[in-house]
Amino acid sequence: MNAASPGFIGCTDNYNAARTVLLGAPYDSTTSGRPGARFGPGAIRTESWGLETYSPILERDLEDIAFFDAGDLELPFGESTGALALIEQQTSAILEAGKLPFLLGGEHLVTLGAVRATAARYPDLHLIHFDAHADLREDYLGVKLSHACVIRRCWEILGDGRIAQFGIRSGTREEFEWAKAGHTALHRIGHECYVEGLGKLAEELSAKRVPVYLTVDIDVLDPSIMPGTGTPDAGGISSFHELLSMLLWVFRANVVACDLVELAPNLDPTGVSSATAAKLVREMLLAI
Amino acid sequence: MNAASPGFIGCTDNYNAARTVLLGAPYDSTTSGRPGARFGPGAIRTESWGLETYSPILERDLEDIAFFDAGDLELPFGESTGALALIEQQTSAILEAGKLPFLLGGEHLVTLGAVRATAARYPDLHLIHFDAHADLREDYLGVKLSHACVIRRCWEILGDGRIAQFGIRSGTREEFEWAKAGHTALHRIGHECYVEGLGKLAEELSAKRVPVYLTVDIDVLDPSIMPGTGTPDAGGISSFHELLSMLLWVFRANVVACDLVELAPNLDPTGVSSATAAKLVREMLLAI
Amino acid sequence: MNAASPGFIGCTDNYNAARTVLLGAPYDSTTSGRPGARFGPGAIRTESWGLETYSPILERDLEDIAFFDAGDLELPFGESTGALALIEQQTSAILEAGKLPFLLGGEHLVTLGAVRATAARYPDLHLIHFDAHADLREDYLGVKLSHACVIRRCWEILGDGRIAQFGIRSGTREEFEWAKAGHTALHRIGHECYVEGLGKLAEELSAKRVPVYLTVDIDVLDPSIMPGTGTPDAGGISSFHELLSMLLWVFRANVVACDLVELAPNLDPTGVSSATAAKLVREMLLAI
Amino acid sequence: MNAASPGFIGCTDNYNAARTVLLGAPYDSTTSGRPGARFGPGAIRTESWGLETYSPILERDLEDIAFFDAGDLELPFGESTGALALIEQQTSAILEAGKLPFLLGGEHLVTLGAVRATAARYPDLHLIHFDAHADLREDYLGVKLSHACVIRRCWEILGDGRIAQFGIRSGTREEFEWAKAGHTALHRIGHECYVEGLGKLAEELSAKRVPVYLTVDIDVLDPSIMPGTGTPDAGGISSFHELLSMLLWVFRANVVACDLVELAPNLDPTGVSSATAAKLVREMLLAI
Amino acid sequence: MNAASPGFIGCTDNYNAARTVLLGAPYDSTTSGRPGARFGPGAIRTESWGLETYSPILERDLEDIAFFDAGDLELPFGESTGALALIEQQTSAILEAGKLPFLLGGEHLVTLGAVRATAARYPDLHLIHFDAHADLREDYLGVKLSHACVIRRCWEILGDGRIAQFGIRSGTREEFEWAKAGHTALHRIGHECYVEGLGKLAEELSAKRVPVYLTVDIDVLDPSIMPGTGTPDAGGISSFHELLSMLLWVFRANVVACDLVELAPNLDPTGVSSATAAKLVREMLLAI
Amino acid sequence: MNAASPGFIGCTDNYNAARTVLLGAPYDSTTSGRPGARFGPGAIRTESWGLETYSPILERDLEDIAFFDAGDLELPFGESTGALALIEQQTSAILEAGKLPFLLGGEHLVTLGAVRATAARYPDLHLIHFDAHADLREDYLGVKLSHACVIRRCWEILGDGRIAQFGIRSGTREEFEWAKAGHTALHRIGHECYVEGLGKLAEELSAKRVPVYLTVDIDVLDPSIMPGTGTPDAGGISSFHELLSMLLWVFRANVVACDLVELAPNLDPTGVSSATAAKLVREMLLAI
Repeated sequence: MNAASPGFIGCTDNYNAARTVLLGAPYDSTTSGRPGARFGPGAIRTESWGLETYSPILERDLEDIAFFDAGDLELPFGESTGALALIEQQTSAILEAGKLPFLLGGEHLVTLGAVRATAARYPDLHLIHFDAHADLREDYLGVKLSHACVIRRCWEILGDGRIAQFGIRSGTREEFEWAKAGHTALHRIGHECYVEGLGKLAEELSAKRVPVYLTVDIDVLDPSIMPGTGTPDAGGISSFHELLSMLLWVFRANVVACDLVELAPNLDPTGVSSATAAKLVREMLLAI
Repeated sequence: MNAASPGFIGCTDNYNAARTVLLGAPYDSTTSGRPGARFGPGAIRTESWGLETYSPILERDLEDIAFFDAGDLELPFGESTGALALIEQQTSAILEAGKLPFLLGGEHLVTLGAVRATAARYPDLHLIHFDAHADLREDYLGVKLSHACVIRRCWEILGDGRIAQFGIRSGTREEFEWAKAGHTALHRIGHECYVEGLGKLAEELSAKRVPVYLTVDIDVLDPSIMPGTGTPDAGGISSFHELLSMLLWVFRANVVACDLVELAPNLDPTGVSSATAAKLVREMLLAI
Repeated sequence: MNAASPGFIGCTDNYNAARTVLLGAPYDSTTSGRPGARFGPGAIRTESWGLETYSPILERDLEDIAFFDAGDLELPFGESTGALALIEQQTSAILEAGKLPFLLGGEHLVTLGAVRATAARYPDLHLIHFDAHADLREDYLGVKLSHACVIRRCWEILGDGRIAQFGIRSGTREEFEWAKAGHTALHRIGHECYVEGLGKLAEELSAKRVPVYLTVDIDVLDPSIMPGTGTPDAGGISSFHELLSMLLWVFRANVVACDLVELAPNLDPTGVSSATAAKLVREMLLAI
Repeated sequence: MNAASPGFIGCTDNYNAARTVLLGAPYDSTTSGRPGARFGPGAIRTESWGLETYSPILERDLEDIAFFDAGDLELPFGESTGALALIEQQTSAILEAGKLPFLLGGEHLVTLGAVRATAARYPDLHLIHFDAHADLREDYLGVKLSHACVIRRCWEILGDGRIAQFGIRSGTREEFEWAKAGHTALHRIGHECYVEGLGKLAEELSAKRVPVYLTVDIDVLDPSIMPGTGTPDAGGISSFHELLSMLLWVFRANVVACDLVELAPNLDPTGVSSATAAKLVREMLLAI
Repeated sequence: MNAASPGFIGCTDNYNAARTVLLGAPYDSTTSGRPGARFGPGAIRTESWGLETYSPILERDLEDIAFFDAGDLELPFGESTGALALIEQQTSAILEAGKLPFLLGGEHLVTLGAVRATAARYPDLHLIHFDAHADLREDYLGVKLSHACVIRRCWEILGDGRIAQFGIRSGTREEFEWAKAGHTALHRIGHECYVEGLGKLAEELSAKRVPVYLTVDIDVLDPSIMPGTGTPDAGGISSFHELLSMLLWVFRANVVACDLVELAPNLDPTGVSSATAAKLVREMLLAI
Repeated sequence: MNAASPGFIGCTDNYNAARTVLLGAPYDSTTSGRPGARFGPGAIRTESWGLETYSPILERDLEDIAFFDAGDLELPFGESTGALALIEQQTSAILEAGKLPFLLGGEHLVTLGAVRATAARYPDLHLIHFDAHADLREDYLGVKLSHACVIRRCWEILGDGRIAQFGIRSGTREEFEWAKAGHTALHRIGHECYVEGLGKLAEELSAKRVPVYLTVDIDVLDPSIMPGTGTPDAGGISSFHELLSMLLWVFRANVVACDLVELAPNLDPTGVSSATAAKLVREMLLAI
């Protein structure tokens, strides 16, 4: 007689033995477009059971590695300060246990809680950010704790020269100018520096063994392959393999924490978005 | 050459001449179930154009009355305090202009902003509440400004003996006991006192010309006729005419402000929920 | 090796032996709300295969009667005059063959083609009309051949005292007044005369053996049981058995032609609307 | 740090202390209409978290009773013999432990596995069956282990005079005649004996303390309140309270095992069907 | 207190100051596939509010240019002659005011009304046409005013050598042969001449300052990025940037009027199609 | 007066004259992910009517070739042995009549029935397999007749060196190793040998006039262009033209039977998946 519902396919029951810990952060109260990212972690777990545990790309199997699925945090909707505190606290606990936290959003704001915890432990933390949107606003309708400002909030912790952004194709003129003023390395999608930029950066960071936080807003993918997200934006990365290659590069660096955010499974009745996100999580787990 | 998009069918352009003012409050950040009430006001307006302006039930036409559609407030997602302040302020302005504010939610929390404004103007305000849920919790996951606590928050303003609840069929044991302790007159659906209770109350309030705020959580209707709401609850009012009759009774009292909340049109792909809500708004506008 | 796709469950291949002929009229170009009635006949056929051929209500089986499914007419979208001519012509051919035509819409305008043919053959034709909407406008945005005017157009053929309407709950003030002026017997839903009115009428028509055309706009049903229609209107007949009882009364009269229109299966992703319409067609076929 | 995903709201972790055991049987390989009942148990669990643990109808709380959620069996799709054996085996284990098994389907065929186990333990077992369909065919397209034959298969175990059916409104002429020949007590919906029949039966069975298996095919409900099922059939029980009252009667008898089958949540994008089924499960758990 | 509903994001209230005028033409009565293009203009406006006003591709902001959103024409469904007359009249008025009309369909037939008006003003008008379908039929089921014939109808006005078609991948053999006979320059997708053809043409037209009408049937995009259209056709332009590059080339010529047609938002429940169309409109507005 | 519902567009009524025979196999009882492939053949036929009969790619018209649409087999759900026997029998009959059978699934298991029949007639049969999944398991949850094992079952008939697989991107480690051990030529998507492998193979087989069975699991396509399938898998063939080119190569060999399986139209509410599958069937019919 088994427990009622299992976690992500291939996860271990043994928290102590795990090197990586999946943690759901089902919060989407500041989402300004279509809400639903709260359903992301659950859908990723459910869809994982339609996958194999083996990746023919990486030639590795989830059963060969040890990761624990800690389930979802119970976060208070409409109360961002409290929600972020819970995320920060749990992420800290995982880091303290010598494990790598892998957050499943939820909206992009949840990244802030995890970055706070990770930066506290790794003062020289760098952030690599995949997204369609710059997320560099000072505030959004007066709200500072908003998904639209999350990288700006991270910058307040990390400072200039620590944040690299890839896949960006939306933002206000002010955001692009603010980035260009030297605050972040913003790589617009399609620009020549885009892929090379990542390659170089990953090598450098890897060489220096700088601790890296990787945050992937799933809307960096083109809506054709990822319709299930709150603010889909045409003209994104249109191949799963292309995104995966880029992430594999990042994982050659010293990634100490990561997240995948903004899957809103309710927005894609075909279920394809969740299946694709689950496959991405599998590959990321295997690549860590 | 017309303006880009009109308001609710039959509305006037002339704010000054209007007796009633529709005001959209597209906020749903504390929704704990399925979000989407933010899309309620827009869907009600759009669907209103599939209705006639004439009601054969009331034998009255929207073109005979004067109401203004003030559009939607721009509310900051994830920032309930700020959102409520904006609602309160706008409701006050409408009341000060001698008009009746008719709020379109949004989640039920938005009612609190309007009740604050109305109670400030009418210190002896009574509240008549239609809902599947008691909404009487002291807090929800520690959050006091939550849809699940909104009537409790209203009670903090109005006090005992001022709130009557109809159609209730869900809540914690504590909520039902708290109500029974004399704080609100909670009428469970199906109970004998249910319809009679409303009849008597409406007569009394009407006789005394007590000012009444009417709040209708659309989930008081059975999910068969109102699937498009965040926490549908089986066993509700299963006839449009039954709900309408009850509301018409309330309008015989001195209703000084009202709202219709919790329509989440994204949850009902048939569009029927929005069409039904729009028809209800038409009848309420004609009944005022 | 069978033909590629069969017709309505239980239909015969033998046109000559058939007493009733189903004919699809997939036209919806004048639909002013949500289009899709063009998909009605196909969905009714497909869903019929999920039914039994036996009705426990009527204790009769489709295999005991003989009806032919003539498939769909190929109607020119956007060309109402031409579409109606094709419907009229085919209906005439069925009537001339001594059979009863049973039209499956399509929008309500298609009824006009069939009524023209039937009235030509039966000059004393009466019309019994089930609908949420009066459909008595003189024109709709200047268009006379519109679903919103179809009963008015039929009246131009049949004249005063020949049309009885049931279930009506929407229309302009002018339509209700025009009916009341003696042109049609309009029975609003819920009014006391509503059910009795039908009973009496059916008896009278039956006694006189007056030829009757029965037209059922599926939106006479409440949206809770029939969401899949272009202009769903709250407050309709909320029980399948209630509608069926009323139709069975009508079939005691001399029904010489009939139709079921305005199913828009694309608007109801659950498929329930189509299944319900198919069951209604089965019962009507058995009742003829 | 909690387990990844919890079971039905309010369930205990303590199998030994539990009086009732929920067991998912996600099988739908013989479904002849729209498949998806395999997703039923998962959806019921997920939706249960949108409910309160307290029932104001029964004035009882899930936290006051002890039930265990055993999760889902892993059943081999397309292999009915094997799937039924697994269900039978698990049901037996629960019965042997002195607990009441509560199966969540899956298609109706899964009932056969549980009835086999229960009849083995209780030789004088009676079956009370709620359904739109008679399910009394000898075979379906040559298949004997089919959802369309499940009650016939149960009759082969239980024999004449042991099965009572309620809400039935579909079947072949042969099925109705076979029942009438004395094999089962088939109560068609709407017939006068329908409600009385149940009342009397429940009293009798209760008086004799006969062991009862209760099987509820969710399609006994009208499609208006339960669209999410594979073969929705118009004209069913159209009130949640009506079905609940009938079930409460049954629970006065000595129910030793029960099931709720045929919820297909994928067929109802509004989520209302799952929410309603979850509420029904809560009430049944509290009524046991 | 604002107006009820605003137009496309960033539009001006000042008609006189505007250089471009957006005009909705919500007509789809001749659609032979899946209807719904009538909902296109509304969805484009609504979705525009999820975009930024700034385009990082063009490095330009909607707030820097002046365009007016004239809302939707009220077109008579099922009456193509009348609908086209209204479109023609309104387009003429915009052209006479020295402004550029930008029509939002609606089905492709609406282009004919705008081309009539534009050709009347610019006798040497050329047409550049992006589409999956040739739209060159003489008639469709006898109907000449059909979306399937719209370019043929335009050719009757403009004559040989004035029409260039891009992205075409569907049509009858007759249509392809008719084009090849010299009537239009039809560039099939994937053919070598395809991109070069456009480049050369744009240069030529630009050099001669020939007035150009640009019509974009959104189904020129591959269904993977544009599922929300009535007759999706596999094998189209599969990158937003590729289509945008081609359109930017066209805008180097003297575009005097343009349109975007055939978005049917109801067919794509993810909302991605509308968001992509809105982004395309933004880029086109900025490119004019 | 036509038959009720026609087959695939352009099919002939004359079985004797036909060279190719379409045969629907609506079975999906062993589907372990999302069911619905049973609806594939019907959707392909319906959507075919939205296509032209002419292919501008092949410059050929369905009206120039002769193919018969034999409709759907009536297969017993949940009874794989029986279903496969019916498929085998019908395929044999078509082959015996000297025609090419073209099976429309249904889940992939149906291929086994057709391969049995074809291998019986052509002992040196080779199999070319397009799929996301290897389908090489020995059994799935103990079931040997499962979609997940179908190529393994075919291998038991054909033996080593007769099966080539393309597009594969999912499977267990054991499946990949088993293939690599020399049992099948498994070409992972994206590998250099992938396209060349097919080119060479097609030439060789063509040169030797070896009889070839072509099976296309539609999920070989990327989910972006084919969401409507039970186990969508990211990273597939993302261009319709690319798949078509590969299939055209195969058709240069001596294809004696073929199939297209695993379209589950119910999973893609946009209808695009069915439209794309229908277009693929058209091109395959023209290429035979």
